[in-house]
Amino acid sequence: MTNDHAGDHRETFKHDPIGHAEVRAGMTVDELAAEYGDGGFGATALHEAVDVYSEMLGDDVTNFLGLAGAMVPAGMRRIVADLIRDGHVEALVTTGANLTHDTIEAIGGKHHHGEAVSEDGTPREHDERLRDEGVDRIYNVYLPQEHFAAFEEHLRGEVFPVLEEEGAVSIQRLTEELGRANAAINERDDVEEGPGIAAAAYENDVPIYCPAVQDSVLGIQSWIYSQTSEFTLDALADMSDISDQAYEAEQAGALVVGGGVPKNFVLQTMLVDPDAYDYAVQLTMDPPQTGGLSGATLDEARSWGKLEKAARNASVYADATITFPLLVAAARERIAE
Amino acid sequence: MTNDHAGDHRETFKHDPIGHAEVRAGMTVDELAAEYGDGGFGATALHEAVDVYSEMLGDDVTNFLGLAGAMVPAGMRRIVADLIRDGHVEALVTTGANLTHDTIEAIGGKHHHGEAVSEDGTPREHDERLRDEGVDRIYNVYLPQEHFAAFEEHLRGEVFPVLEEEGAVSIQRLTEELGRANAAINERDDVEEGPGIAAAAYENDVPIYCPAVQDSVLGIQSWIYSQTSEFTLDALADMSDISDQAYEAEQAGALVVGGGVPKNFVLQTMLVDPDAYDYAVQLTMDPPQTGGLSGATLDEARSWGKLEKAARNASVYADATITFPLLVAAARERIAE
Amino acid sequence: MTNDHAGDHRETFKHDPIGHAEVRAGMTVDELAAEYGDGGFGATALHEAVDVYSEMLGDDVTNFLGLAGAMVPAGMRRIVADLIRDGHVEALVTTGANLTHDTIEAIGGKHHHGEAVSEDGTPREHDERLRDEGVDRIYNVYLPQEHFAAFEEHLRGEVFPVLEEEGAVSIQRLTEELGRANAAINERDDVEEGPGIAAAAYENDVPIYCPAVQDSVLGIQSWIYSQTSEFTLDALADMSDISDQAYEAEQAGALVVGGGVPKNFVLQTMLVDPDAYDYAVQLTMDPPQTGGLSGATLDEARSWGKLEKAARNASVYADATITFPLLVAAARERIAE
Amino acid sequence: MTNDHAGDHRETFKHDPIGHAEVRAGMTVDELAAEYGDGGFGATALHEAVDVYSEMLGDDVTNFLGLAGAMVPAGMRRIVADLIRDGHVEALVTTGANLTHDTIEAIGGKHHHGEAVSEDGTPREHDERLRDEGVDRIYNVYLPQEHFAAFEEHLRGEVFPVLEEEGAVSIQRLTEELGRANAAINERDDVEEGPGIAAAAYENDVPIYCPAVQDSVLGIQSWIYSQTSEFTLDALADMSDISDQAYEAEQAGALVVGGGVPKNFVLQTMLVDPDAYDYAVQLTMDPPQTGGLSGATLDEARSWGKLEKAARNASVYADATITFPLLVAAARERIAE
Repeated sequence: MTNDHAGDHRETFKHDPIGHAEVRAGMTVDELAAEYGDGGFGATALHEAVDVYSEMLGDDVTNFLGLAGAMVPAGMRRIVADLIRDGHVEALVTTGANLTHDTIEAIGGKHHHGEAVSEDGTPREHDERLRDEGVDRIYNVYLPQEHFAAFEEHLRGEVFPVLEEEGAVSIQRLTEELGRANAAINERDDVEEGPGIAAAAYENDVPIYCPAVQDSVLGIQSWIYSQTSEFTLDALADMSDISDQAYEAEQAGALVVGGGVPKNFVLQTMLVDPDAYDYAVQLTMDPPQTGGLSGATLDEARSWGKLEKAARNASVYADATITFPLLVAAARERIAE
Repeated sequence: MTNDHAGDHRETFKHDPIGHAEVRAGMTVDELAAEYGDGGFGATALHEAVDVYSEMLGDDVTNFLGLAGAMVPAGMRRIVADLIRDGHVEALVTTGANLTHDTIEAIGGKHHHGEAVSEDGTPREHDERLRDEGVDRIYNVYLPQEHFAAFEEHLRGEVFPVLEEEGAVSIQRLTEELGRANAAINERDDVEEGPGIAAAAYENDVPIYCPAVQDSVLGIQSWIYSQTSEFTLDALADMSDISDQAYEAEQAGALVVGGGVPKNFVLQTMLVDPDAYDYAVQLTMDPPQTGGLSGATLDEARSWGKLEKAARNASVYADATITFPLLVAAARERIAE
Repeated sequence: MTNDHAGDHRETFKHDPIGHAEVRAGMTVDELAAEYGDGGFGATALHEAVDVYSEMLGDDVTNFLGLAGAMVPAGMRRIVADLIRDGHVEALVTTGANLTHDTIEAIGGKHHHGEAVSEDGTPREHDERLRDEGVDRIYNVYLPQEHFAAFEEHLRGEVFPVLEEEGAVSIQRLTEELGRANAAINERDDVEEGPGIAAAAYENDVPIYCPAVQDSVLGIQSWIYSQTSEFTLDALADMSDISDQAYEAEQAGALVVGGGVPKNFVLQTMLVDPDAYDYAVQLTMDPPQTGGLSGATLDEARSWGKLEKAARNASVYADATITFPLLVAAARERIAE
Repeated sequence: MTNDHAGDHRETFKHDPIGHAEVRAGMTVDELAAEYGDGGFGATALHEAVDVYSEMLGDDVTNFLGLAGAMVPAGMRRIVADLIRDGHVEALVTTGANLTHDTIEAIGGKHHHGEAVSEDGTPREHDERLRDEGVDRIYNVYLPQEHFAAFEEHLRGEVFPVLEEEGAVSIQRLTEELGRANAAINERDDVEEGPGIAAAAYENDVPIYCPAVQDSVLGIQSWIYSQTSEFTLDALADMSDISDQAYEAEQAGALVVGGGVPKNFVLQTMLVDPDAYDYAVQLTMDPPQTGGLSGATLDEARSWGKLEKAARNASVYADATITFPLLVAAARERIAE
């Protein structure tokens, strides 16, 4: 308990004490984010993430957004669409699942809060019952399977026929056409929900890259259609476009929400670029201890040259359905000031 | 992909669709919390937690707060002290570590943001260097070891001598005396930081229970002092008081921040009560899959009779240094309306 | 603490008590697995996984193996190759990363244990140093970047030219040709390491599906080559083959190691099949609480019709570099008996 | 993709390549552990843990075992008891829960595999039903509440009366007497299960420390008895004994299974010692990212002086009900060779 070295560290530490976060009724989200800056552990990381992301939203930064998994069924659709619409996304890398569920909402389908869901899931008999009732479960979100039939109809009526004549098309070309078709639907009076992600991207000339599109219901429908038509997808074509975007960026930033292919594809784009990301923020709940890319630190990406050695970066290890809205609200407030 | 059962579920689901969370510059924290209610996954849980905790802050509920681990070094000290001061805590169950670090701040010591800390920790040579420099590391929070000497002096000068004459004292009696001594220090002009947790509890007659007090520097100092004095601690004495509080509560609520002994002790108090918690919220990052109590769902506690079968409860699996300030800010806003 | 219902449950529980796992020097891996059956929590799950996987290795089951992330750099290459060689895999779904690293080993490259690696990673300056030294880090595994140049040479010399003449090829066709080229290398005297995954698959007519091949160095090299040649990849072509495999299977089993695209692609194959998996085992460390597919329970897959309602399934939430070797060793012992 | 620095690192890395783990039917557990040494990620850590723990089992090392949570209900009872009986534990630090459940088994009670348990828990109605049936749930382990009545009878008949006459006793004295009483029961013919942890410790003069004993049913029963008798527990008395054990150890080793108080208490014992642990292994599933002590790396403990700067240590982040039996089986095999 004694300390012969007292004082050695004084110069090192006294300038940056942990404060004591304070909260009060009616504070704004960025005021809360400022309080996180007083704290340690994950609070430090979230505060830093808001700081970095606010800089990324400045004019000079080309922003790549990686959006994993099933963030649309989790209710994150409008936040992404609004970021696109407000010019805060120059390239979106996402999953076929997100585009599938985005389109289901665009054509009037709904996801639902699961009823009587326990805190940690549902037992076998419950999923068997859902199967009998024609309901698909995504953790605590339920989706009537009938919406997939409407989705199929939308694709076969409005999307695939246009592309059929173009020969092998890029995946980005598919997502663009999907956005056009979704935007058209959203102009109808009977669809209350605003235009979604694909529609917003289409209307704002933001490319959507979806490297593993086969791995989704959108991909399955694409394949089924390709069986009886000339429609095909070129797996490699998009890489030129995203590489060009990276190459032309004066400063590049990456916001990575979740792991998987979207995270890796956003990051690997810099492997063929002499430069690398100047800014990077990731919101993840996968732990780095597994060694997988999804949970890997952004520091690790530095060794590969995906981040500049001098890049600013922050990783927040917590549920992204909580941290993503918080990050965006705080950063929007910061830049509005 | 076909669905013979379309329609069976319509009545079940159409009333509660997933919405689309929306964020905007300048929104308040509770406005953000309301948006979480539109979302799925963890966002659903956090929204529910705010809802339940807001009810808990009503007049009729006796609130037990379990505060685990090292939330004070992580900057959560003032939020807890303010909750106590505003009458939102009737009993605090916490660790010796939190009381140790709370007192270090009370007597003018500081914790510090670790410099040059990587996203996922520090390598061996770094901790060896910290050892040489007399700095203790708690993840990304650094504490000069010299503060422990000041802490020892405070205990031996202001706290233990008073208790020595009382024979075997309860642990709550120790924490109460610690709070008195800390409150006295905080009245000095040269200590800028407001009164902390123990001081606030003392000043507001809120008991602090600390079942594993031995397992901390506070405990080590207590033991050292006991070696040369009549001072001793009775391990069981507090259980009458906390049981009485539970028994007398018309309605009881538990807010559990982190796991460990504070979580279990808050919950087990209801094992000797014919009633159980009517409300419970937990903020944890331990996963339930390990089977440990720290990550266990609150539903599980229902089987033991720790929660009423009809209790309202919510578990948020995410970094508590992020969710605790958010929860408290939102609930405070809700009840101020 | 009283229990008015004593006895009600006797019939329910007395037949299946938790035992007491026993370990002794020299026991075999399946003897250990049997002991897990006495335990609770994750031990129960691992025991069940061995049981299910042993059944899957019977003659009548068509086995789909989903292999995520970076299991090859983590040393799992030979275990997978041996399963293929011994007829225990009918279809492999994996990442471009695994195929890239498998090939690097096939051509004589090596991955390395990171030296002086801390338990939880390395700080920024360390990754900056690795960058300067030309070393890529994958958690605690290091890879000299020079191996990527040799990999490029191998692809451009032995793999792509053959495919160039075939027009748009399927991704499986690419992996097949890669396997052929790797198998040829491994026949050389100076390459000590046995044939890897792609080579084993080639030699045993096991198709390798790699839906997100673009998302890897293999994909980047494919794209670069496509820029100056007729070589292209058809994103959808493989789906017919894997669907046919699923359709023709009398009984189908899925072993899913890690999450991501390999997990989802293995499971979604049953969406276009009137039947579903009869057996499924997953080894994952992503938690279900995030709502993501990677950590989702296999029960959830039942609601989608990816698993038969009566399927046998087990999910083990623990580091797959530990559980995968253990599972395979135990199941191999079981079926050898 | 080019690398101007090729070769710089050759000396650094070539000596320690990642191998390719190989498994085969009938291999022993330590043979499997050896294969982990070829792998990366968690496999590396587990291999190192076996290596370190094998050294700890040598003659000169005084071993402290921290056993958290509910490892006894999870079936780990005999493994711990056997380690004690074979002289591999000099001090056990554990929870009141483990001692409670150990004793329930000693007196003939049984824990049970939960029937019809889903992979990720059970919904609210299920726990409500368990409540009605008088069954307590610990994740996937079920315990009829009636066993607590038998446990109470055992304590009040065989344990407390002996201690009542001794005045304020240490917690270790309570656990010792519990062990004596359990050992006596286990000699009866009608109790098939071998002597458990407390009994083995009693019979081998191994002290059991249980700092948070109040936080358990054992603690509740102790308190109830203390209400109507002279029986009391001294919270601080054990610290002299465990400190003496640490002080007298020539070499000290810590095996920490799970986090919580047992982990911290084992480690903090070195805070009052001029020396520190020479060896430490922890098996945990709590992530370090939360900042909590339970998931903290052992490197962090180095900064505090709990581990020697030159200590050998390993942390395995995976389900301890899987890794604990594996570690012990492998180490036992190693030292038997």
